[in-house]
Amino acid sequence: MNKIEIKAPYLIFVGSETDPTEAKTGAGMFKWRPELCTGQLVLKSGGLPIDLPLMTIAQAKEAGAKTLLIGTAAIGGGIPDEWLDTLEEALNAGLDIAAGVHKRLNDIPRLCAAAQKSGARLIDVRIPPKNIPVGTGKKRRGKRILMVGTDCAIGKKYTALAVEKDMKKAGLKADFRASGQTGIMIAGKGIPIDAVVGDFISGAAELLSPDNEDDHWDVIEGQGGILHPGYSGVSMGLLVGSQPDAFIVCHHANRTHISGWDDFPLPSIEDVINLTTTVGAQVNPAIHCVGVSVNTSDLNDNERKGYLDALSARLNLPCVDPLKGGTNKIIERIIAEFPN
Amino acid sequence: MNKIEIKAPYLIFVGSETDPTEAKTGAGMFKWRPELCTGQLVLKSGGLPIDLPLMTIAQAKEAGAKTLLIGTAAIGGGIPDEWLDTLEEALNAGLDIAAGVHKRLNDIPRLCAAAQKSGARLIDVRIPPKNIPVGTGKKRRGKRILMVGTDCAIGKKYTALAVEKDMKKAGLKADFRASGQTGIMIAGKGIPIDAVVGDFISGAAELLSPDNEDDHWDVIEGQGGILHPGYSGVSMGLLVGSQPDAFIVCHHANRTHISGWDDFPLPSIEDVINLTTTVGAQVNPAIHCVGVSVNTSDLNDNERKGYLDALSARLNLPCVDPLKGGTNKIIERIIAEFPN
Repeated sequence: MNKIEIKAPYLIFVGSETDPTEAKTGAGMFKWRPELCTGQLVLKSGGLPIDLPLMTIAQAKEAGAKTLLIGTAAIGGGIPDEWLDTLEEALNAGLDIAAGVHKRLNDIPRLCAAAQKSGARLIDVRIPPKNIPVGTGKKRRGKRILMVGTDCAIGKKYTALAVEKDMKKAGLKADFRASGQTGIMIAGKGIPIDAVVGDFISGAAELLSPDNEDDHWDVIEGQGGILHPGYSGVSMGLLVGSQPDAFIVCHHANRTHISGWDDFPLPSIEDVINLTTTVGAQVNPAIHCVGVSVNTSDLNDNERKGYLDALSARLNLPCVDPLKGGTNKIIERIIAEFPN
Repeated sequence: MNKIEIKAPYLIFVGSETDPTEAKTGAGMFKWRPELCTGQLVLKSGGLPIDLPLMTIAQAKEAGAKTLLIGTAAIGGGIPDEWLDTLEEALNAGLDIAAGVHKRLNDIPRLCAAAQKSGARLIDVRIPPKNIPVGTGKKRRGKRILMVGTDCAIGKKYTALAVEKDMKKAGLKADFRASGQTGIMIAGKGIPIDAVVGDFISGAAELLSPDNEDDHWDVIEGQGGILHPGYSGVSMGLLVGSQPDAFIVCHHANRTHISGWDDFPLPSIEDVINLTTTVGAQVNPAIHCVGVSVNTSDLNDNERKGYLDALSARLNLPCVDPLKGGTNKIIERIIAEFPN
């Protein structure tokens, strides 16, 4: 197996957390894949303010759940001791456990022992699968659209999920392809590209969007930023391995510098378009930008419209905020440019 | 420790191999660092045709050797059983063993046991050190020159070692910085950049060429190729982390396609210069190309001169074959452009 796969349906577990911001994986799971969620389990009364029934492990098992999914913030965080009784109970009941937190499930002896006994799996989505090959660059069938960014943490995953949803609504065949741990939890499969050894990044990206039907779109979650001082290698390898036909630049309206690298001005959208096109053309000469997705959360409705209209005129591209109005303008552009 | 370090002087060990092509790490070691080599140990009569005395382990130890260096071809290859008596004897005598072959020294129980007993180290130069941070992009003091290539296996290591040697002859302060296993064996230290996890490639490159005196040059071995379908992520991360002031493009006069990726035409030298400059400028706006190093082994002397002269006129850059006449034309350009 060279791709992580998580079995649905899921029981969402968020410890004692009831704030969706802190339980963003669990909340995101329900937002994007409600059909895969059976229930939620919270260690205090209440629960997440989402429309999922509170369940015990026995109830979830009875309802068909296959995996307990740890839904607290994927970046940072651990597995507190007070969760262990619950997690062990889940394993004893035959549920797999999947987590994207820093602490590895497979490093906790008590959980390993319980998993071994029941045959349940401990799935650490931050650990890439073994036996990833070097990228071949060979052209694959099907269409691919990659999210790229002027920075990290700028909406690439959200945009990809919104594009997948809006493409399906428009009658296109589309699958979100997850390249990061939160995305993998949501999609139930994928490869954590940033955890792959350098020589195999493009190869991992090739596995992530395999050969497909000619009119099928892989909507690939981006990572890092191609002009980022820390993560450009990952972005570059993902770009080259994805051989995208199209890409969307993700941006934040009010960000001026690379987040956490304050000496670095944010690259312009044009710079990102040009560099992505230059590099991507090596593996797919037809590559081009089909739109820009902007986080405009700091703007009011009037400002947002003005900003997006001006950007659209400047770049001659559809520019949207996926949270405010979806990505349909970009989908229309894609349909116009890729008629089947 | 977040850099591999091998203690000199070395006893070069090449098993039963006496052909310098097959024992290229050993032969290269002596070519570039004769002052670090105490002797050679070969399991049959003869030895490598290099000016190093044949020694037993006892003699090497007596002569001050600190490390037995396995000098057979670094790419591929293993540790044959018939070497184990000799390697165990070296560990018993307190010599470290360093190797860049695929098979890990640390996976051979007999060697692990002997090393533990004597306190000697087993150094697998393909395994990157732990605790590599994410790249910061912070400007470091000192000057850096990076080898980049139109392809893999095109002379980047050789060129870097030749540039280091010629810089020192010209009175400049210079250190070769090894980013691959053979280079690390020769330099005695370095980081195997292509074995580092994606998120930390730039950070590894930053460790490789740390803060230094203002007039000191780090001559950084390149990896992969920025437009390579398999390895561009590694090249990109190394470029961004190296924040080079200058770079040299390495090329092969008669190569038309990417070696082993026959569907891909070789990118032009101009394309590599432009992309390297665009990306590198993000971390060092002064970056520029100072020359081209070409493997012209397929050309005769007349053809070589014609080729290099025409290339030099086309690019307005010094173009050399480091094997045929050294890199002095490039060193002169560097001295002119970076007066101290």
